[in-house]
Amino acid sequence: MGDVYEIRTDLALETQEKMQEEHIDVRGVRFLEEKKPYGMTVSTVVIETENAAHSMGKPKGRYITLEAENLSEDDEDYHREISMELAKIIRGILPEKMVKKENLEDLTEGIEVAVLVVGLGNRGVTPDALGPRVVDNMFITRHVLQEFGKYAFGNVKTGSISGIVPGVMAQTGMETVEIIRGVVKESKPDFAIVIDALAARNTRRLGRTIQLSDTGINPGSGVGNHRNAINEKSIGVPVISVGVPTVVDAATIVADGMSALIRAMGESATLKNLGDNLDELGDSEKQELAREVLSPQLHGMFVTPKNIDESVKQLSFTISEALNIAFLGNKEDDWNI
Amino acid sequence: MGDVYEIRTDLALETQEKMQEEHIDVRGVRFLEEKKPYGMTVSTVVIETENAAHSMGKPKGRYITLEAENLSEDDEDYHREISMELAKIIRGILPEKMVKKENLEDLTEGIEVAVLVVGLGNRGVTPDALGPRVVDNMFITRHVLQEFGKYAFGNVKTGSISGIVPGVMAQTGMETVEIIRGVVKESKPDFAIVIDALAARNTRRLGRTIQLSDTGINPGSGVGNHRNAINEKSIGVPVISVGVPTVVDAATIVADGMSALIRAMGESATLKNLGDNLDELGDSEKQELAREVLSPQLHGMFVTPKNIDESVKQLSFTISEALNIAFLGNKEDDWNI
Amino acid sequence: MGDVYEIRTDLALETQEKMQEEHIDVRGVRFLEEKKPYGMTVSTVVIETENAAHSMGKPKGRYITLEAENLSEDDEDYHREISMELAKIIRGILPEKMVKKENLEDLTEGIEVAVLVVGLGNRGVTPDALGPRVVDNMFITRHVLQEFGKYAFGNVKTGSISGIVPGVMAQTGMETVEIIRGVVKESKPDFAIVIDALAARNTRRLGRTIQLSDTGINPGSGVGNHRNAINEKSIGVPVISVGVPTVVDAATIVADGMSALIRAMGESATLKNLGDNLDELGDSEKQELAREVLSPQLHGMFVTPKNIDESVKQLSFTISEALNIAFLGNKEDDWNI
Amino acid sequence: MGDVYEIRTDLALETQEKMQEEHIDVRGVRFLEEKKPYGMTVSTVVIETENAAHSMGKPKGRYITLEAENLSEDDEDYHREISMELAKIIRGILPEKMVKKENLEDLTEGIEVAVLVVGLGNRGVTPDALGPRVVDNMFITRHVLQEFGKYAFGNVKTGSISGIVPGVMAQTGMETVEIIRGVVKESKPDFAIVIDALAARNTRRLGRTIQLSDTGINPGSGVGNHRNAINEKSIGVPVISVGVPTVVDAATIVADGMSALIRAMGESATLKNLGDNLDELGDSEKQELAREVLSPQLHGMFVTPKNIDESVKQLSFTISEALNIAFLGNKEDDWNI
Repeated sequence: MGDVYEIRTDLALETQEKMQEEHIDVRGVRFLEEKKPYGMTVSTVVIETENAAHSMGKPKGRYITLEAENLSEDDEDYHREISMELAKIIRGILPEKMVKKENLEDLTEGIEVAVLVVGLGNRGVTPDALGPRVVDNMFITRHVLQEFGKYAFGNVKTGSISGIVPGVMAQTGMETVEIIRGVVKESKPDFAIVIDALAARNTRRLGRTIQLSDTGINPGSGVGNHRNAINEKSIGVPVISVGVPTVVDAATIVADGMSALIRAMGESATLKNLGDNLDELGDSEKQELAREVLSPQLHGMFVTPKNIDESVKQLSFTISEALNIAFLGNKEDDWNI
Repeated sequence: MGDVYEIRTDLALETQEKMQEEHIDVRGVRFLEEKKPYGMTVSTVVIETENAAHSMGKPKGRYITLEAENLSEDDEDYHREISMELAKIIRGILPEKMVKKENLEDLTEGIEVAVLVVGLGNRGVTPDALGPRVVDNMFITRHVLQEFGKYAFGNVKTGSISGIVPGVMAQTGMETVEIIRGVVKESKPDFAIVIDALAARNTRRLGRTIQLSDTGINPGSGVGNHRNAINEKSIGVPVISVGVPTVVDAATIVADGMSALIRAMGESATLKNLGDNLDELGDSEKQELAREVLSPQLHGMFVTPKNIDESVKQLSFTISEALNIAFLGNKEDDWNI
Repeated sequence: MGDVYEIRTDLALETQEKMQEEHIDVRGVRFLEEKKPYGMTVSTVVIETENAAHSMGKPKGRYITLEAENLSEDDEDYHREISMELAKIIRGILPEKMVKKENLEDLTEGIEVAVLVVGLGNRGVTPDALGPRVVDNMFITRHVLQEFGKYAFGNVKTGSISGIVPGVMAQTGMETVEIIRGVVKESKPDFAIVIDALAARNTRRLGRTIQLSDTGINPGSGVGNHRNAINEKSIGVPVISVGVPTVVDAATIVADGMSALIRAMGESATLKNLGDNLDELGDSEKQELAREVLSPQLHGMFVTPKNIDESVKQLSFTISEALNIAFLGNKEDDWNI
Repeated sequence: MGDVYEIRTDLALETQEKMQEEHIDVRGVRFLEEKKPYGMTVSTVVIETENAAHSMGKPKGRYITLEAENLSEDDEDYHREISMELAKIIRGILPEKMVKKENLEDLTEGIEVAVLVVGLGNRGVTPDALGPRVVDNMFITRHVLQEFGKYAFGNVKTGSISGIVPGVMAQTGMETVEIIRGVVKESKPDFAIVIDALAARNTRRLGRTIQLSDTGINPGSGVGNHRNAINEKSIGVPVISVGVPTVVDAATIVADGMSALIRAMGESATLKNLGDNLDELGDSEKQELAREVLSPQLHGMFVTPKNIDESVKQLSFTISEALNIAFLGNKEDDWNI
């Protein structure tokens, strides 16, 4: 038996896994998993058709997930490796119309595009602060290039990076997409990279997963409610999203507990026929159970780990470093002579 | 049926309620509830004997709980009323050997005692930041009194207030009680007031409840693990604790969901006999269920509301204002002439 | 003798004072000073002609300055009085085409206009954090009114308040005016109120002065360089500015020291004729002295008080409270019944 | 001519330079300057006798200064080099009675000592936040070693690191030295390393200099007034101080301006004899000038660069990394295989 209730996740990988578990074969979805050094796994889900998008509950496009066990631990050299891998993934997912493919191989060189980095979320709520903190750590270049040109950076190839932390609706009174659209119209970047904290389906993912997508940000179940769709259609330029699951919806873990309870009843000798009976319940009866059981008090509550501050700090460094490398190039070699 | 699993709460009021629900009469516990203006309720639990302390799982002493529906909302004048009520409660729970009772009635005057205000918790994790933020907003006077005497405050009665934010063990490498004991030995306050974020049993309490106690802080299930017992025995001076529940343990809400499921089965026509059967399960079978169902992944996870930042901000103002009034007196009238 | 070097100030009042000191009568400037309770002084400088604007080095318009000795001290009731006075001044300076005059008298009622509050400055540099902190403390209503209408606020008159903290150019790579213009175009407020930390001419003003103006923000000498002109012409809606001097340019205090030295020489018996001789120096000779003496190392340096954190905290509360009262009305009486 | 007024600096190197400029030969002071790669300069001032200490206005002991042009710029690999150099300096200045010299050469290994890292200063005032931020970035190990022993770190040599951010007197009401003494007595480290923001004599030093000393912290002219002497005598264990100049006293730059003016007068053809005359002023006349000219308003004011936030951020990373390397060893090679 699957989940008692339909539960949202911001991770395409989790939707894919659920489909596999339930032996549902979705046509129009391609899936690829690669093992990388340092215990990293890179998974790619490509949703190729509108039908597949409907089944998966996510827009057509590419979803790339980098997983690593120690992503939120504090080890500078390990994170340099993750950042390098992530920088490659970022370059690979950039909109083709903006970026010439031949320029992307060499990470020691920057690429000459104009990118607006948007840090979504609420700086004051720890698991939602990832986006603002990534922007804090970006190496901002747009104003320098506009005033002094490439000369200011030794004439090497340098991306034009701008950044904005729009805040959440409770702080601004505006839809976040309104603010971004306004800033994009004025500053005219080639595309936007939007950083956000995500909601996962499974607590095991928290702080161990980074998802990149070329579909932008679509209304979901993150920490805050700061998100009408942010995509090429709504803001006028292509949108790459970079997200890290930092919370699980409170209702999700309760529903999981109940599913596990029902499953356990099916497996327990004493309770076997109770569990079997529950498994035979129709959908409407399950919904009735859900309504009675899932207290409205869980609405607006999320689950997050006690060490979320360290996790967000570490992940924001890793992501900002990856973005800096992807657009400005990796200067390490200059200094190691 | 009660809870499937034993679940901890930092609130004596919740333990009291559970006892009442289960019709357990604990001898040696007194309970009093008073309705106050502005929708406030003040409940007092007094644990009078060691036996009662054992049954309640909390040390002997007084536990006073102030509840109000809008405690975490942003309304300055409403909060002034809450702060005044809270200031009275604080004065009433101060250690008698330190404070002469006759001086406490008049809130427009301060009281001449030396108090160390300790803000427990991790400033970087929003629901754990309550303690540090209260200390941020205290009106610190000890150094001024030491240098200039009462003269600096117009010769009116003025408490000597000092404050410390010790940090959590992951930040300091030390037990919090070590730091406080060291600071108490050097600065010699009459007593300490320790502010902490608590774990409640029920999400409904979050942001709506303030608990005061004359028993200090005892190892519990708060956000962080920053707490060996902090009480007169461990630090050398009496300890008043002021706590606000800001989180619920993740395992708690899952166990609640399962209890509700079992209860719902008992009430549903279709499932009646399943539920009844489960209700008849023995304790060991329930424990078995628990072990199978409550994933170890929930360990180290907590549940908190999405607007926790506003809630902590508002409550820290209310508590610091109450402490300032309790020790320095309420100066309002001076200005309203 | 006046200042040796021309020195900028963001305060029209200081320019006015300098003109008076030097007995320069600028036609087209009106000046009014009123004493208020609680030691407040309210000064109004109105620059009425383009000629006067040229002489004063500031655009045509109204500049209202509220001064009070203890503006940055921590006294809640005193600040309530300041906030009420400031709320009246804010209402009086709102653009007439947007706001009907007859509605402004009664501070217990809000006014039905749509205002965007912009917090300029860098949250990470204490004296420049005033603007961001004011927005943090605003009571944001626009999204609630848009979703639920006046009903959400008990059908009383309520301003539609939105807020934005655009960041500074080093953080965003964009001119602040670009960001604000984009946000204004999308969210269409009636006007903007822009909060900023200012540079004063005199350290005595720091933390004791609030300047309001209907001319917007014009390139000046504040902490950061976050300001192309922000006014009706550049963003498309009228701009009211609220500024507090928190820094003095480092070069300013050095020039002051030198002026004082030269003046002292003129007054000292021993040095009298040296001072007199210096007083007779021509302007070009003074400029030469300036170039030699004012080290380029002072460029990019500012002077600020050691307790600037308390000062900015207190002033940001006072200003946000005044704005909340001006647009939402003062609810105090509701609770005191 | 030297300075008109006696001006304090926290940097022994600046005192040394002033002595050299004025051709004062202080017996009992040794001075050594070394050029290092990456444009670093390491200077050592050793004050060997009480007489020399009196002349220099600083206690007997070693003062080592690391200077580099780009210390506050954002370049990860450059800073790794600085951190490695700094780690060597830290190891070289540790108290000999605590640390066996033979263990110090190999930076890939940690050293088995117990160190308390103290972050002095006020987190809320940007140039004073250096100490707190260094502690934020320390890799704290004491609690892990106490609970699990070396096993937790793969049995390699690992320092026991604890940390504390005591706050400043306005926040705590206590002398900082009281708090540190209390914490030292309870937690019993072998020695303390105290991080502080310093006041320089010259704006050119700001953000480009790190001073280490084995004499602790002695009352000076830093940003805040958070410092009674913190040294072996006052807290009971040896104290190593690490300081970075982030401010210059406001009175200092004014006095500099006046000195420069007087010097300029001596050099200018027109003013030559004025300047010469001033140069001939006696000390009492200079003091009189000072009293008239140096306004008391400059008291409590400091000068700091506009980009101080970036500077403090970068330097806190460099210093915390150096401390982590010095006590825990540099793990880089593990990952680069």
